[in-house]
Amino acid sequence: MAVGWFYLSVLALCSLGSMCILFTIYWMRYWHGGFAWDGSILMFNWHPVLMVTGMVVLYSAASLVYRLPQSWVGPRLPWKSGHAAMHLLAFLLTVLGLHAVFEFHNHAKIPNLYSLHSWLGITTVFLFACQWFLGFSVFLLPWASMWLRSLLKPIHVFFGASILSLAIASVISGINEKLFFSLKNGTKSYSNLPSEAVFANCAGMLVVVFGLLVLYILLASSWKRPEPGMQAEREALLHGGE
Amino acid sequence: MAVGWFYLSVLALCSLGSMCILFTIYWMRYWHGGFAWDGSILMFNWHPVLMVTGMVVLYSAASLVYRLPQSWVGPRLPWKSGHAAMHLLAFLLTVLGLHAVFEFHNHAKIPNLYSLHSWLGITTVFLFACQWFLGFSVFLLPWASMWLRSLLKPIHVFFGASILSLAIASVISGINEKLFFSLKNGTKSYSNLPSEAVFANCAGMLVVVFGLLVLYILLASSWKRPEPGMQAEREALLHGGE
Repeated sequence: MAVGWFYLSVLALCSLGSMCILFTIYWMRYWHGGFAWDGSILMFNWHPVLMVTGMVVLYSAASLVYRLPQSWVGPRLPWKSGHAAMHLLAFLLTVLGLHAVFEFHNHAKIPNLYSLHSWLGITTVFLFACQWFLGFSVFLLPWASMWLRSLLKPIHVFFGASILSLAIASVISGINEKLFFSLKNGTKSYSNLPSEAVFANCAGMLVVVFGLLVLYILLASSWKRPEPGMQAEREALLHGGE
Repeated sequence: MAVGWFYLSVLALCSLGSMCILFTIYWMRYWHGGFAWDGSILMFNWHPVLMVTGMVVLYSAASLVYRLPQSWVGPRLPWKSGHAAMHLLAFLLTVLGLHAVFEFHNHAKIPNLYSLHSWLGITTVFLFACQWFLGFSVFLLPWASMWLRSLLKPIHVFFGASILSLAIASVISGINEKLFFSLKNGTKSYSNLPSEAVFANCAGMLVVVFGLLVLYILLASSWKRPEPGMQAEREALLHGGE
């Protein structure tokens, strides 16, 4: 993989990831009154922001740690610890995001976990928790044999990508649901595509484009830690050759 | 891969795929009055059934053709033609599914393509069309060089899996949207989880489980056409050894 492509992809990822977060914040601030942490509808507004930030963007950044050529040489432990720590932070933001919607529901006497969006979302968070604990136990703690690690690694990578895909499906159904809730009447109805609808639909499509780029980089073999024989390409990426 | 696992997975795929279609048909027949092709709400009912059948189940079956060990030996052309023909049938069902919802909208004076579900869905169908034409031109017509084919193959495989993921996200947001439309009042509201809501949520989760199993089989290396050296495993799968 050429160095130019590598830095272009990093730039595209950082820009798209930031735009996903900023679009969600702007949507909640401009059309829904901003944020609070008091059980009101303004507490709900944290939910989309924290889910997109934690479960999509930070989760993706944490997953991509091993795709940095710098991680391909030298001791693995610092990179493993960074991977686990970033995923833990992503998980904590996700739990705060769940807390925001549950608190709002409880204050407003709205039942929790009835929509398909919520069923898929909570399943995704549960799988994320299992993935983190299994990854921590097998790949970071020293007890597991190399045999067990190499057996579980493709499953860990597959579920890592799957959880991101499910998170994106949850985000899409969540934005769609929120727009049907808030754009109900007259010229402001969702079907008339007022500016909020166009803006939030674009935010959703941005999350999809970001997710596809992350999945491509995660799964494309040219981004993976090269086998020992491929020293030349590794050196080129680390020291700026083509 | 052991032969037992192979047949167990085929059985699981066929059962789950059939259940996805049957659940969607049952949902539309039992709670929404069944089917017609007349521009009424009964014409809309074809939309979920045709999308789940074409864009998820038949699309998956067509994608998995090369994961049958029988396709790993002998001439490739019949398998390629089968892969293309099954995808074409999946695409035709998908277009009929789009026609069903557009006709219903046009008769009922409801705008088309406003929700995020519809934006994502139409993007998925557009990508499917591009993927089919590019695949047909490069891999089935005889003009393309081996160099071009081997360059495009990983991209074709990646977009194949991505289009399925986007189809699943579209199905989830579509079921969620339909339930908010149809379960609005009193004890029958979505938030009270009436029997229709539980049933359709389960149908959505079934589609997710089916999709994850398909993606695992598509992407796991032990299911792919083995390299020439791996004759033993290939023979075992074809002739019933372990």
